[in-house]
Amino acid sequence: MKETCYCPQPRDVPATDSQSLDSSEREGEAESEQSSLFSGLLLLLLPLGGDGTVNGTAAPQARTSSVRRRALSFENGGSPDVHIGSSLLSPIVASWRRTSHLPPPAPRIFHPPSSCMSAVPCFKCQSCYHHHLQDLCRKQLLLIGENHISIAMLPVIAVHGGAGHIPKERAEVSCAGVREAARGGYSVLRAGGSAMDAVVEAVTMLENNPSYNAGRGSVLNVKGEVEMDAIVMDGRTLASGAVSAVRRVANPVQLARMVMDKTNHLCLTAEGASQFARAMGIPEVPEESLITDYARMRWKKNLAPDANPVECQMGKMGTVGAVAVDAEGNIACATSTGGMINKMEGRVGDTPCIGCGGYADNKVGAVSPTGHGEAIMKVVLSRLILFHMEQGKSAEEASDLGLAYMKERVQGLGGVVTVDPKGNWAARFSSLQMAWAAVQNEQLHYGLYIGEHFTESACEPS
Amino acid sequence: MKETCYCPQPRDVPATDSQSLDSSEREGEAESEQSSLFSGLLLLLLPLGGDGTVNGTAAPQARTSSVRRRALSFENGGSPDVHIGSSLLSPIVASWRRTSHLPPPAPRIFHPPSSCMSAVPCFKCQSCYHHHLQDLCRKQLLLIGENHISIAMLPVIAVHGGAGHIPKERAEVSCAGVREAARGGYSVLRAGGSAMDAVVEAVTMLENNPSYNAGRGSVLNVKGEVEMDAIVMDGRTLASGAVSAVRRVANPVQLARMVMDKTNHLCLTAEGASQFARAMGIPEVPEESLITDYARMRWKKNLAPDANPVECQMGKMGTVGAVAVDAEGNIACATSTGGMINKMEGRVGDTPCIGCGGYADNKVGAVSPTGHGEAIMKVVLSRLILFHMEQGKSAEEASDLGLAYMKERVQGLGGVVTVDPKGNWAARFSSLQMAWAAVQNEQLHYGLYIGEHFTESACEPS
Repeated sequence: MKETCYCPQPRDVPATDSQSLDSSEREGEAESEQSSLFSGLLLLLLPLGGDGTVNGTAAPQARTSSVRRRALSFENGGSPDVHIGSSLLSPIVASWRRTSHLPPPAPRIFHPPSSCMSAVPCFKCQSCYHHHLQDLCRKQLLLIGENHISIAMLPVIAVHGGAGHIPKERAEVSCAGVREAARGGYSVLRAGGSAMDAVVEAVTMLENNPSYNAGRGSVLNVKGEVEMDAIVMDGRTLASGAVSAVRRVANPVQLARMVMDKTNHLCLTAEGASQFARAMGIPEVPEESLITDYARMRWKKNLAPDANPVECQMGKMGTVGAVAVDAEGNIACATSTGGMINKMEGRVGDTPCIGCGGYADNKVGAVSPTGHGEAIMKVVLSRLILFHMEQGKSAEEASDLGLAYMKERVQGLGGVVTVDPKGNWAARFSSLQMAWAAVQNEQLHYGLYIGEHFTESACEPS
Repeated sequence: MKETCYCPQPRDVPATDSQSLDSSEREGEAESEQSSLFSGLLLLLLPLGGDGTVNGTAAPQARTSSVRRRALSFENGGSPDVHIGSSLLSPIVASWRRTSHLPPPAPRIFHPPSSCMSAVPCFKCQSCYHHHLQDLCRKQLLLIGENHISIAMLPVIAVHGGAGHIPKERAEVSCAGVREAARGGYSVLRAGGSAMDAVVEAVTMLENNPSYNAGRGSVLNVKGEVEMDAIVMDGRTLASGAVSAVRRVANPVQLARMVMDKTNHLCLTAEGASQFARAMGIPEVPEESLITDYARMRWKKNLAPDANPVECQMGKMGTVGAVAVDAEGNIACATSTGGMINKMEGRVGDTPCIGCGGYADNKVGAVSPTGHGEAIMKVVLSRLILFHMEQGKSAEEASDLGLAYMKERVQGLGGVVTVDPKGNWAARFSSLQMAWAAVQNEQLHYGLYIGEHFTESACEPS
């Protein structure tokens, strides 16, 4: 985005002026054939660029630059959020389709302050957004009428690297891994890949990273062996694939996707899953290649009679997962884990259990959780959060409600990454920490502690 | 219940007349200290006895006797159902506690017809319920004030023997098995057993019955082997136990309960589950003892290249399950299955997946489903139905909504048995048939086809 501000003074544009914005010659004019429908309504503009802008529903207490604080202040200065029905939305969508080859965004609408009915102050020059917006329009914005502005919030991806207590010496590498995975998934989305492609890519990267409890780096069961669980779900069709207690595969998430794509089942377990992997030509890897010294050290430590594997599960390293919405509005989730440390042989946790270890529905959103698997299962956490979203809660509110319920009802801690079809995302957790990262509008967001929210350009190296 | 009617003519009882009903000497008087609170309200009386009475929310188009039709006509003759808040309910509960050692029922309240403000016509003598009710009161009814009557609808159990298409030659044996299992579970409840004891007893009986696809009688996987799934869930604590792809145990449901009771996990799979069974002293049974000639015949038939195991899964024999509410208001569910016919080795269906193959929550109710497992999983059917109940739908409405959604969204057919904490139950299915049975108030209800609802005394032999 250009740093220069092109904003002119506010001016009147006739309400009947109906011109598309598909060429630079028409800059300065606005399509407003439907503006009467929206009088008094302003589609929220989230400012773009490298100034640390965040999605309003993302994480709490973001560390903001002064520019960003001003923008947020403007966002929150209007009247309460207004939900629009399909009768109001359809003209916006129709207009978008005439002016863009991209799928229409799902706009968030705010009542503008009364002083801003014909022009909205620019967060850079405090003048108006007029020209500025039309510059952005050709990139990611929708401009309908003088005051009706929406941002294309898609595609988006959010990933997590497990909830729990991450020691300082592992914090940096844990954060770096999720940032890299979020960038990896986003690059798939940018290249036109599907949400499913993106979440599998991100989770594969995390499985290959020995810093997480998934794939290489998995915790060991009571016998010192690696048994892994994974799930994927496609929000278009509610198709899903999962594997449980699978051994000697490098990337259980890819095997889970093959269960979805190549069988008429949803879940394969143990030796049956291994047989399927062989049939699919997935190479069997030596178990040793999946075991890190750190995992073996923790396994030995937890063989002590007074050890508490449930507590230990919530520390150090965690389950990994991702949720994404692609440019076409399709939603997917993926989760992968080595499970609970020193678990019994054959223990299956929440991860491969649809609705618990993940859920994705194009109509509602997607969730990938992490935390104490048995607690997540008892409350069917992922589906629970999406039910709250179906009841009108935002991704952030619903995630908080689900996690609070899990804490209150079954004394379980954990975390989630959540998206809705509009591209609103949330990374929320009730544990002390959760390594998370998200990418939207070329911005990388990440954090580890509650309330922590850093941003940087998605193009910058980690 | 006595057949003779003792109803006197209507009479006035002072609103301050506060006497308990804990002795026969006080027969004819009524505790009515709170009656002013309820003026205009009548707690619904469901008539008891061997005359075919059914729970109003049970199954559709019950085949009723003339007596029962009259009773239902009365039930439906008043104003619409009224939900009462805790401020109205608490005096009822307090009164109940003074007069009964049983936990208070959750009453359903109707506005009485205006002509019945001081006396309600008896469905037998068309006079009033007064004495009649007090006779019932010592058994199962709560009488507060002159006109405030509630029935103790607990305990209750409902079981199913699978949804699908059951050929005529197997229909009778299929119905007989579920009736026997419902009676077995109910006898546990009558003896003071918990809802969990009851559902495990009922499902164990169905597993031992070779007419169902669970335990002995399980369908075979593509290799001709038996791999079984089972789940139990305790609505008090949301504790659950499950096994998946387990072999050579006679009663997977009992092993699932042991996973809940004896481990800190919720699910064990395959060889890990078998190891746990051995550690618990559960004898390993020969695989041949679980395989019926019928199961082997179907397996061979479905090895044909043009066979459709998904279609076949929905026929002939099905998953079994039960839901129950005990006298203390605790709720449980259990489900057990041999899975999908000619499934891949290691295929895990909905049954051991919490929220899909069963869910129980004392605050909401319980569901045990049957049908196409992969479809049930995609919509997380059991939890979905309970979400509808949390939103105010009855057990029947919620079951129908869940099944309709599954049919519409993922083209899946199936069925469920559902209970709520008040003891309202439903047996609903979108498939052609589902063998089901329920026992409440000494009455056995059962059916096979849509709209079919027979009743008989629970004491009668099948």
